[in-house]
Formats: sequence, C-alpha cells, structure tokens
Amino acid sequence: MITVPVNLDKRSYSIYIGSGILNCLGDLIKGLNFGKKALLVSNPAVYQRYGEIVEKSLAGGGVEVIAGEIGDGEEYKTLDVAAGLYDLAFSCGLDRRCPVIALGGGVVGDLAGFIAATYMRGVPFIQVPTTLLAQVDSSVGGKVAVNHPRGKNIIGAFYQPALVLADLETLKTLPAAEIKSGLAEIIKYGVISDGGFFAWLEENLGQLLGLRAAAMEHAVETSCRIKAEVVEADETEQGLRAVLNLGHTVGHAVEALTGYKVFSHGEAVGMGMAVAARMALRMGMLPEKEAGRIISLIERAGLPAALPADFTPDEILEVMRRDKKSLEGRLTMVLPAAVGQVRIIADVTGETVKKTLETSI
Amino acid sequence: MITVPVNLDKRSYSIYIGSGILNCLGDLIKGLNFGKKALLVSNPAVYQRYGEIVEKSLAGGGVEVIAGEIGDGEEYKTLDVAAGLYDLAFSCGLDRRCPVIALGGGVVGDLAGFIAATYMRGVPFIQVPTTLLAQVDSSVGGKVAVNHPRGKNIIGAFYQPALVLADLETLKTLPAAEIKSGLAEIIKYGVISDGGFFAWLEENLGQLLGLRAAAMEHAVETSCRIKAEVVEADETEQGLRAVLNLGHTVGHAVEALTGYKVFSHGEAVGMGMAVAARMALRMGMLPEKEAGRIISLIERAGLPAALPADFTPDEILEVMRRDKKSLEGRLTMVLPAAVGQVRIIADVTGETVKKTLETSI
Repeated sequence: MITVPVNLDKRSYSIYIGSGILNCLGDLIKGLNFGKKALLVSNPAVYQRYGEIVEKSLAGGGVEVIAGEIGDGEEYKTLDVAAGLYDLAFSCGLDRRCPVIALGGGVVGDLAGFIAATYMRGVPFIQVPTTLLAQVDSSVGGKVAVNHPRGKNIIGAFYQPALVLADLETLKTLPAAEIKSGLAEIIKYGVISDGGFFAWLEENLGQLLGLRAAAMEHAVETSCRIKAEVVEADETEQGLRAVLNLGHTVGHAVEALTGYKVFSHGEAVGMGMAVAARMALRMGMLPEKEAGRIISLIERAGLPAALPADFTPDEILEVMRRDKKSLEGRLTMVLPAAVGQVRIIADVTGETVKKTLETSI
Repeated sequence: MITVPVNLDKRSYSIYIGSGILNCLGDLIKGLNFGKKALLVSNPAVYQRYGEIVEKSLAGGGVEVIAGEIGDGEEYKTLDVAAGLYDLAFSCGLDRRCPVIALGGGVVGDLAGFIAATYMRGVPFIQVPTTLLAQVDSSVGGKVAVNHPRGKNIIGAFYQPALVLADLETLKTLPAAEIKSGLAEIIKYGVISDGGFFAWLEENLGQLLGLRAAAMEHAVETSCRIKAEVVEADETEQGLRAVLNLGHTVGHAVEALTGYKVFSHGEAVGMGMAVAARMALRMGMLPEKEAGRIISLIERAGLPAALPADFTPDEILEVMRRDKKSLEGRLTMVLPAAVGQVRIIADVTGETVKKTLETSI
C-alpha cells in the first residue's frame, strides 16, 4: 500500500493506494476518533459489488454503517437528492463526529462531500473512489459540489477528506470508457507539470489501457502526487490551482451544450486539452511538435481530439464565458507552454478562442 | 464608528458599530477588491426601509446590487429558498468575486451566509445586521445555515464574513419583543465571561430597554468583543466555543417543540439560561445568590425564566438528546459556575436534567 500525503495544516490527510485494500478501511479510521456510525453514500451497482466488504471492514472497527444509495448519474447530484440524505443521516442519529463515506465515482464523491461539508456544519469525510477518474482527480483536493439546473458544480464548497482510499482492484470491473475518462486526467497531469511522466505515459499507455497493476499504480500515485502539490500550494483556487483546469473550460462548455449526456467528462477534457494545445500553438507559445505530442497521446488513449460539429464556435464561446471560473466575462485559459509546463493566460481574446474552435471541429 | 477586530488569520475581519453608518458600506468595501455586482439578500420590510440607502452607498463604490428578497420568518430559511437565490445569482452573472450581502436579522444572515459559503464554492460575504439579536450574535462568528424539516440549522457551514456593519439606528424601528430577544444574548455574554459587564447590565438595563444610544453602543460592542474572543479561540466549535450555547440546548428544545412559532429565540434562550442556573445550583456548582441574580436579570429584561407547562420534562429531554451538539446521545450542558464564568459539563445525567426541568415549569 502506497501512501501519498496531502499537507494542508490541520486539514492534512493521506491517500492510500493499493490493490485489494478496501478491507483496510476499518483499521485506517481507527485512529481518527470518529463516531460509531457512518453514512455510506454509494450507487446501487457499486454498493452491490463492494458494500459488504466495506461494511464488514468498518464493523471490525466498531462502526455501524447507514447505507445511503443514490441513483447512478450526474442527474442525481442535486440539492434534492442531498436533502434526502440529510434526512436519512438525521433520522439515524448521526452526530458531528460520524463520518460520511463516499464509495463510488465522482458523482458519489462530490455529493457525499457536499453532505459532509454541510451536515451539522461539517462532519468527517472519507473518499473511497472506485473509478479511475475519481482516484486520480475528484477524490483528491477537497472540491465538493452539487449541480444547479443552470450549471454543473455551481453549489459546493472546499472541504477536505480525512482520508482517501483508492483500491486499484475496483478498476478491473470498469467499462473501457471509464478507464479512458480517467486517462484524460492522467495525461493532463503530465502536460501541466511533469514532462518525464508524460514521456512515461507515451511509453506505457498500452499497459494502462490493459489495466496492468504496476503501471496503473504508478500512474495513480504520480497523478495524486501532482494534484496534492498543486492543492497544497493553493487550496481554494486563488491562483495556481487553476492549472488543474487545463482542458476544462472548453470541456465544460461541450458537456453543458450536450446536457452532460453525449460525452464522458474525460472525453470532454480530451477535446479541451487538444483545443488548448492548438490555441497555444496559434498564440506562438507552444512549438508545433509539442502540440502534436499532446494531441497524439489524447487520440492514442481513445479520446476525441476534435470538437463535435453540432455547435458553432460562438455557441461554445458563449457558454465558456458563463463558466464559474470566468471573472467579469473575461476568458482565462490554461495553456501549455511545453509538455510539462502550463501558463494561466488572462484576457485571451474571443477572436483567438473562436479561430481555434473553428479549426478544432 | 467603533471597530471590533475578529482575528482569524486569513479569515480576519472587522465589525463596524455606530449610529447612522449604513451609508458607509460602499466606502468600507472599496478596499476589499470584490467584483462589481453584489447579491443583496433581505426581506420585504427591511428592504423597503433600508434597501435604497445601502444600494446608493454601494453604487458610490461602483457596485451594482441585485436584490434577492426572501419571505420574513424562520420558515423561509430552507434549501428551496436558497435554490431560488442561486438561480438569481447565476442568471445575473455573479462570479466568484461578487459578494453576497445580508441586510436583515438572523434568518436573512444565516441564509445569505449559506448562499455565500456554497455558491461557486464560496464568495465574499457581508453582514449588515438590522436586529439586536443579529448585531450581537448571529452576524458574528461565521455560523451559517438553513433549516431541515427535522431540525433547525442542520444544514450549514462555518463561513466567516468579510465585514460586519451594525448600524444602531436600525434598532429604533424594531418591536420591543425583538429588543428583548437581543437582550437575552447580551445577558448571556455577561454570564459566560464578564462579571463586570453583567453588573453594568444590572445597572443599565433600563437604558437599554429605552434604546439609549450610548448604552446600546457599549452593550453591542462588548457583546461583539466577547463573542469575537471565543470564536478566535475555537472557530469551528471543537471545544471552548460551546460556552456560547449557554441556555441554548434547552432553548432549542423548547423552540423545536413549539414549532419555532410560540417563543422568540431570545425568550427560549432566557428560559434556557434560567434552567441552566437552576441546574448549576442543584449540582452545587453555583451559589444561590448568583443563580438569583441571573434569573432576576432575565425577568427584568421581560424574558420568561420559566418553561411553558405544555410539555413534560421527558418530552423536552428527548428533543435535547437530538440536538446536533449532542454526541452519541450524551448530554453536554454549559452551566454557570459564577456570574462571569461557565463550565462545559459532559455527561450530565438525564435524571438531573429532568429534576431541574420539573422545578422550572
């Protein structure tokens, strides 16, 4: 079992990564002095597969589990679904020291984290991510949220987990699309801050697509380390943390325009990163060869590097301006300056964005 | 204008107290580098009276106000009402740097604070409390929340304002019941940590009931200073901050049992403090004379010191055990050890509580 520390003063915690470690959860939380009941948030498929092993492990640690199942999909990440879970927690007598545990992917983690952040003004939160995307991205760093009818993750908080447990065994039952979705974020870490890791990904992509244990462990660990470093430097996204949004401004716009139903998050981020590489090339800040390496790795991972033809650049631009990361309508873009290095460019002109979008369809 | 600093590292802020200072808001926020739009949360009566002066002041600082009115009363402090305000903020293009401003009493402050804490994972928050209760208590310290059908303030966060502006002029239009409600909390500060202030209150209660400016300013300032000290020592209620709950465990139970409709919060806290004094007396930790002084000041302020006869001690006890401050059903009570000093007693027996409740009806 590998441990990646996330150092945030009083809110520091560890990420545990390994194969077949779900049953260690009960032991890992023993030292944390939590209450003797826990709300386990999961979706039916994940709960059916892993609920029993987690509950048994927690029972061994003296913790009784209250199971809170939610539907599977982004459309269940709402205030209404949260309201049902507050109700369950309250009626089962969960107090301020009782943890909320997220067992599942990003939807489960974001929603459970929002409950943990707000139930009784904050209770302990544990992430047990079971998708590659959640293991390398959403479970680390403390961003929690629910969606608003007008936008994704509009209602949320920065709320750090007390521990993250990523069992690589859970990846083996994922559909290939889910693995690709996680790969998009893994590639992102290489682009934003580690040229060596990017080169390793170019070498070992086949191993990852084949879910080879050693390669996957290295990829998850390295991704978590890079994300932890960025979050440690800027917990609440005042500046630097924005580098994690490489590919996400365009990606979110495409997701929003398609009602979050056509493309996976990873596919949208893949497109977004390809657009960012083209934009950086257009602006003369990224050599053509490097742009080519980024786009090529996205494509080799089975992710789209082109935008869907269903929308005009103007439509995409309009949604980008509404993103919660935009300030007073200005477009701030994270763009690669090399493989392994990005810059945050404020005031990118709408014209540059539009021209790049035109050549990306 | 008096300034009371609240020192919480990066989350430090100032409380400004004075008469006729509403129109200073625009100047005060100029240095804070916020966005150029603000969501002003208020209720119809308060907005009609003070909305214009606040909006004018903000316009002078270059800030455009989006008015978000909510109904007047605890029953509007819900997730549903919050959802409407998220919608308004989003559709008006408020971004992460745009403040949410609470203009009103505790309900407005708690709800607006919850919006500020969660909209786009947190935006700047400004408190402009217009009731005595809000000026001396709810606007200071960063507790924000909405209610859940099963309990008050069950869904919330610790989220500090960027500034608090308390204009004493706004107290002049309050009904007498509202002033008494605030006095309950002011008396509380004397009991928990300042015997000299308590003695001053015994001397000057008439001045406060008559809304004399100098006395009111001293009472609000001293209350804010005491609350700030406690919050600085324990921002998220890990321990010491619980002293602020003197009178609140029994008070909340009475409020819950009567559907928050029969007694004001101050009346409930008055009863709760009287019960706490009697309980401390019964447990031999408070001299009879001191208990008498506490109960007498509560009564002189026009607050009830006896519990309503409509409920049995068992019914009240049952609700107390459900309070979000109770851990695993144990009863932790804040009890006076003297006028000006309280102790947090864990494991008070149900028997002691019941016997005290019996003699308090």
